[in-house]
Parts: sequence; structure tokens; C-alpha cells
Amino acid sequence: MGDDALAMPLVDQANLACGFHAADPLTMQRTVALAVQHGVSIGAHPAYPDLVGFGRRHLACSPEEVTAQVLYQLGALDAFCRAAGTQVAYVKPHGALYNDLVRDDALLAAVLDACASYRKGLPLMVLALLDNRRELEFADAADVPLIFEAFADRAYLADGQLAPRRLADALHRDPQRILDQGLAIAQGEAFADIDGKPLQLCADSLCVHGDNAESLAVLRRLRALLDAS
Amino acid sequence: MGDDALAMPLVDQANLACGFHAADPLTMQRTVALAVQHGVSIGAHPAYPDLVGFGRRHLACSPEEVTAQVLYQLGALDAFCRAAGTQVAYVKPHGALYNDLVRDDALLAAVLDACASYRKGLPLMVLALLDNRRELEFADAADVPLIFEAFADRAYLADGQLAPRRLADALHRDPQRILDQGLAIAQGEAFADIDGKPLQLCADSLCVHGDNAESLAVLRRLRALLDAS
Amino acid sequence: MGDDALAMPLVDQANLACGFHAADPLTMQRTVALAVQHGVSIGAHPAYPDLVGFGRRHLACSPEEVTAQVLYQLGALDAFCRAAGTQVAYVKPHGALYNDLVRDDALLAAVLDACASYRKGLPLMVLALLDNRRELEFADAADVPLIFEAFADRAYLADGQLAPRRLADALHRDPQRILDQGLAIAQGEAFADIDGKPLQLCADSLCVHGDNAESLAVLRRLRALLDAS
Amino acid sequence: MGDDALAMPLVDQANLACGFHAADPLTMQRTVALAVQHGVSIGAHPAYPDLVGFGRRHLACSPEEVTAQVLYQLGALDAFCRAAGTQVAYVKPHGALYNDLVRDDALLAAVLDACASYRKGLPLMVLALLDNRRELEFADAADVPLIFEAFADRAYLADGQLAPRRLADALHRDPQRILDQGLAIAQGEAFADIDGKPLQLCADSLCVHGDNAESLAVLRRLRALLDAS
Repeated sequence: MGDDALAMPLVDQANLACGFHAADPLTMQRTVALAVQHGVSIGAHPAYPDLVGFGRRHLACSPEEVTAQVLYQLGALDAFCRAAGTQVAYVKPHGALYNDLVRDDALLAAVLDACASYRKGLPLMVLALLDNRRELEFADAADVPLIFEAFADRAYLADGQLAPRRLADALHRDPQRILDQGLAIAQGEAFADIDGKPLQLCADSLCVHGDNAESLAVLRRLRALLDAS
Repeated sequence: MGDDALAMPLVDQANLACGFHAADPLTMQRTVALAVQHGVSIGAHPAYPDLVGFGRRHLACSPEEVTAQVLYQLGALDAFCRAAGTQVAYVKPHGALYNDLVRDDALLAAVLDACASYRKGLPLMVLALLDNRRELEFADAADVPLIFEAFADRAYLADGQLAPRRLADALHRDPQRILDQGLAIAQGEAFADIDGKPLQLCADSLCVHGDNAESLAVLRRLRALLDAS
Repeated sequence: MGDDALAMPLVDQANLACGFHAADPLTMQRTVALAVQHGVSIGAHPAYPDLVGFGRRHLACSPEEVTAQVLYQLGALDAFCRAAGTQVAYVKPHGALYNDLVRDDALLAAVLDACASYRKGLPLMVLALLDNRRELEFADAADVPLIFEAFADRAYLADGQLAPRRLADALHRDPQRILDQGLAIAQGEAFADIDGKPLQLCADSLCVHGDNAESLAVLRRLRALLDAS
Repeated sequence: MGDDALAMPLVDQANLACGFHAADPLTMQRTVALAVQHGVSIGAHPAYPDLVGFGRRHLACSPEEVTAQVLYQLGALDAFCRAAGTQVAYVKPHGALYNDLVRDDALLAAVLDACASYRKGLPLMVLALLDNRRELEFADAADVPLIFEAFADRAYLADGQLAPRRLADALHRDPQRILDQGLAIAQGEAFADIDGKPLQLCADSLCVHGDNAESLAVLRRLRALLDAS
């Protein structure tokens, strides 16, 4: 909560854990209040039920299970939003579930089904790739708007996929590199992929992870640069 | 689910576990679908987070924690209701939390706060006592309607409190006794408390537990008698 | 516990859940007491941490995580065995983890490492296949004895792998078929695989699942036939 | 783990969470390895099953449930000790369970029963009070050795009970005060209770909590002073 309190004024959107990989009811309620206080848009961050693994381990769930898991977490977070006079603005799956969406058609359809059946027009946030036609086709069929997201602090493979976390260079730690990649994405320009080759992504949302020591400083500088641009 | 499928046609209201003492997302979604299919009104059945103890063990939570726990579970269940075209009709706390409401002012206020802040007019179901003025005062202050509930298959103390489950006679097992007590409550007549003395309760809702072998048969006969009366 | 009390006199070995896919501490303690009372050998039945999925869903854990998970569950169950004057006699992973052992070398080595480092000579129970040379090589390297297990009530593929539970015919429900397959396995004779072709397995242990309605009756007849043979 | 790695060289005994209020199997295994590397004695730190509440909320368990919960956690931790060539040296309940021991006879007997039935001679660590005759009587009856513990960084009531955490002054934050209280306890001298009056406790073990920012610095100075004395 300490870091959340410092980060919240710097962001436009916050992805809030819903209890399956992190968070508990009271923490969720307080974080929602903090987001509302700073006018930050609230995204549901549903995950596989895996607290110990922080939602980063793939769990072989059926599509029906995934739809139900996303609905459960979405409704739970939205209860705190309602109580605070707002509502969940979008859904962004977390960790292994997020990664599975660009690989598994049935899981992508399952998550879209949860969004569509919860509230008409509720958007799903997915990874911006070089080519997102597949995601757009599935989303059109489910009548769900998409938000495309790129990462300032993650290394990318040549096809626009995130470099897996098990690779040594998967996470940028150099603040300048995070800043450069973030600005390039925000301005629609190319940046270096994991092999140093130029990669250009078309994204609606820029993500900086909050769980490392330098993230707050980087966030401050990025915010200042984006506000000035 | 087998028993739920048989019981659902016989009841008007179903209290659905929300994952903290029982149930999981997919089971909740399926039970909501079953309730909708039979036109049964859906109540949220939030509990202390205690799967192993089935929510029957008191957990010393702060009022803020309880408000957040109820909101979380209520929203989670309501997500399945929304997806099925309906909504949670009332809130009935489960187990130790239900029992704590008639004893602890701060917890009663905390649960009322969850109901009021989730949706204006969402009722809370509480135990019908000989004298419910305390509950009515708190509910009026929170602007939450109350539903008073009595039990066909639980023994009562002289003051209208439920006999604690640790007592040998706390649960009626004789189908005729359950039937007699259920009919008496439904018709506003007196029935025998745990000491055999007459007790008369004023209740809006009659509960028969689904977790014992004879409950289905009793439910069938009770339904027939009530429909005929 | 009701069924356990009836089944325990009929078996030589019981696989006890250790809290990760089922069971809780008090249930474990009582089931250990029941096994000791009937002279039944106690096997630890560790699983992926997945209560909702009953340990049947693969969870992408690292080998280090699996070793630690097995040690944790093994020690927890063994505490009840010590308190009852006995000890865990063998380790039989449950569900998805059991199935993963015949597919994933690193996981097999991880589970063997847990057995070897817990107690010298503690055996691991694995699936009896047409050819178990791979399992024997790994077990020899870890200095862990193996127990080979076959199933009376599961359909088999031609190579001795279990037919996946998602197939319609994966579970035998006809008591006579379970009995026939069980006797054939016990006597080292061939039985019909899922395609009706003869399959012969060399097994040390015969498993009948306890979680279906007919299992108790089948178990009684099988016990009688095996005792008579 | 970062802080654990720095603190481990400074302590003689480490209380290790067993998964019910904190920790997971792999973290436990790594912390055991760290303790063994530094020759630190390992205590099991069992708790009520309450991850969200960090074991600090009382949970109304029966004595039978508590015995089983302690055995489960003790065995789980001891598995990692065995695998590392050592064994659990003592049992120190955590949080609400620790506090309940000085108030509830049945729970004290239940925890002693777990210790005695796990391994003859396994000590239980309890709060050093002005008068510990009650604890000694129960422990003698169960044939369990006691270790009496006092806290350098917690405020005390006049009778030697810990000031409840909900009080503003319950935790010392001033490093000098923690140091003074720690030294006084170690040398059997009086220190100031929460009202400033002198209190003298007879303790075998001195506890400094690891979960606040200054604890490491205080621990270093305390270690140096105690080594020099």
C-alpha cells in the first residue's frame, strides 16, 4: 500500500489484483479508494487461482473454469468499485493467464465471454503484437472492445511477444532503457527488441510494473516526459 | 450439484455459498443457472474465510475486514447473476458470521454497511428472535430492509436464539418434527423450543438445511403442505 | 470418513491426501488412526496445490517447487503417523502430478529427490507401464525403491498409459469389468485395453478408486476373491 | 529472503513460518538451508490457518483441531529439516495461537499434546510471565520441556502479558528502547512496562521481530553487546 499510495498519482490506469494471485478484500477496498481519490481508471486483474505462484504458473483449467474464474474476480472487484461510486473500467488478465490469451483460442474466447456477459462494452486488455488480427477477430465475434498494451520494462521477441521471464534479459532494470522504450511506445516509434533489432508496436496502454525498486522513479520521469510531450 | 438439482424446484429462495466457506467459481455459475431455470430467488451466503471449518468457526475479524469480505463475496456471486440476467436478491451471512450478527453490534453494522453500499434496497436476512428491535434499529440507520428467518430443522433456546450446534439436540433429525416446526413457523403458530416450552416467532423466510439425508423428503412434504394451505 | 471406515478393513494400503488437493489436518489425523487400527499401510498422496481442481489440473511448477511441495506434504502426513506410532510407508503422487511423472524427467527426478532426502529406502509408487525402464533408471540413480501400480477401474491405452479422464470410457463403471480387470492384474494375466486388445502389466499394487458409488461393493468382492486365490 | 539472509548470521534461533500464516514449501526449504548454513537452531512457528490475517486473528478451533494443525505444520517443516540433516528444535506458536496459550487451558494442552506425541523431549516456547506456574504444571503433565521467551521490541502490561497490538504503544520503534529492553531481559534486570513501571522477567529466549525496518540494525547492536557481555 505504501508504494501504491506513491504510484497512484502517476498513472492513468491501475490493474488491481482480485485475490486469486494477490490481494485480500480489505486491501482491494483500500486500493480502489486510493484509485478513486486520484481519478485513476480501475482495471480488474484476474488470475489463475495460485497465490503461492503469484499467478505466474500455467494451470490447466478448462475454458468453462476460466470464464467462471474471471467473472468471480471481476464481480468481486466491481463490488468495491460500486461501493466507491465507480465501476471496473476494463479487464486485464494477469501473469500466466495473460500470456495464455495470445496462444490458446479457447481461453481467449472464454475470457471474452466473461467480459461480454458481465457488462456490454466492457473492454479486454491484451498484448499488442506485430499482428493482432487474431485477437480482433475473436473480440469482434464476442462484441468486446480491445485495449492493446505494451510494456516499458519488459524485453520483446522479434514477433512482439514478451520475452519469457525465465530468460536473463526478460526484465529491463536500467532506468534509462525503461524510459526510452516507454517513450518510444507512447509515441508510436520503434525500440530495440531482445536482439537489438527495431520493433514497432501499436499500443493504447503503456505498462510499467510496480514491483521493483526503481519503478517509482522511472514512473515519475516518464509521467513528466509524457505530460510535456 | 445432484442434490441442488433436486432441491431447487422445491424452494423459493436459495442461499448460495460464495467461495469462502464452500463452492468455487464454476460451481457457483452452475448453481446460479439452476436457480434461474427454476425461478428461484438468489441470496448471497457470505462467510468468514474458512474453507476447512466450513465457515462455522468464529474468526476475530475487524468490522472493516467484515465489510470488505461481504462486499467481495456479494460481488463475486452477483457477477454470475448478471451473466445469467438476474441479480442477487438478498444477503444472508453463513455460519459463525450469521450467529455473530445477533451478538456483536459492530459486525452487524459492518454487514449492513456492505449491503447498503453495494445496492440501495438490497435486503439483509437475519435470525427472527422474540424481539428484533435491536436489528431493526441498526437496519433503519443503515437504510437496509431486513428479512427475518426461522429454521424448521434447528432447535431453539427460550429467547429465540438457535441452540448451539455443539448441543446434542441442536439439529432435528426426525422428519415429522421438522415438518411440524416448519408448518408452525409458516403459519405464525407456536412450536416447542429445546426444553419443550412453546415458542412463537414472526418470520418472513423458512429455512431447511440441504446437507442431511432426509432434507429432500421433508422439503417435498413441506412444499406440498404449504402449497395446499 | 464414513466410506473410509467401511473401505479401510478391505485394503492393504491407503493413499492419504495431504491437504493440497483434499483433506485437512484433523481429517488426516483421524484417517491415519483408522488405518493404524486396521493394520493398513499408509501412503502419502501429495498433489499440486489445487483444492478447487482436486489436484487434477496440471500446474506448471518448477522441479524445485515440486520437491518442496512433496517434502512438505510428506512430512505433514508423517507427523500424524509418528503420533500414532507408525510412519509413512511409501509416496504416491496424486492426479496431475502422478500423470506428469511418466512424461517429465525433471519432475520424476524432483519427486525421487524428495523421497530420497526424506528417508533412505522410502519407496515411490508409479504407474506400471509395458516398459518401465525409464522409471527404473531414474529411481536407481536416486537410490529410491519403486512400487508399480495398476488400476482395476481405469481404462488403459495400448502402451499401458491410463486413458485420459476426458475420454468417455476412461473410467470403468461396470462392477464385473472392474472385478475382471483387477483379478487379471493381480494374477499377472492380460485384460482388455480401451480398444479391446489384450494388455498385460506387471504390477505390485492394485488400485481401486474410493470415490464412486459401486467401489465399496467391488472392493468387497475383489478382497474375497484375492483372499481365496 | 533478502532480510532473512542478513538476519540469520545474527541469531541463535529462528522461528520459521509453516505455510498457515505465511511461507510456502520452497521458501521454507530455502530458509531451513539458510539456518543450517549459519548453525541457527530451527523452531516451528505454527499458526491458525489464516494467510490473509497473517495468523493474528483468533480462530475458534476445537482443541482437537489445534493439535492436528500443529502436528501438520510441525511435520511439514521437519521434512525440510530432515532433508537438510537436522531437525526442528522447538515449537513456538505464532500470533493469535501464541497469545491464546496463556489464556486457554484446553488450547495449551492441545499444543503440548502435539509436541509430546511428535517427539519425546521436543520443547514448547511460551511467553515468560511474572508467574508461569500454570504453564509449568500443564507442561509437566504432558512431559514437555518449556522455553520461556521475552520480547525486546514489544511493550508489556504490568502482569507480564504483551500489550495488545491494537494499542498505539504496543510496538517499540525507538532502536535505543529496543536495545535497552533486550539487554535488560538478557541480563535478568528490570525494564519499563507500558506504564513506565519496572518489570522483571525470567526468560530463556529473547525475541526481536524481523518485520520492521530498523530490526536489522538493532539486531546487530544487540548481538555485539551480548557477545561482549
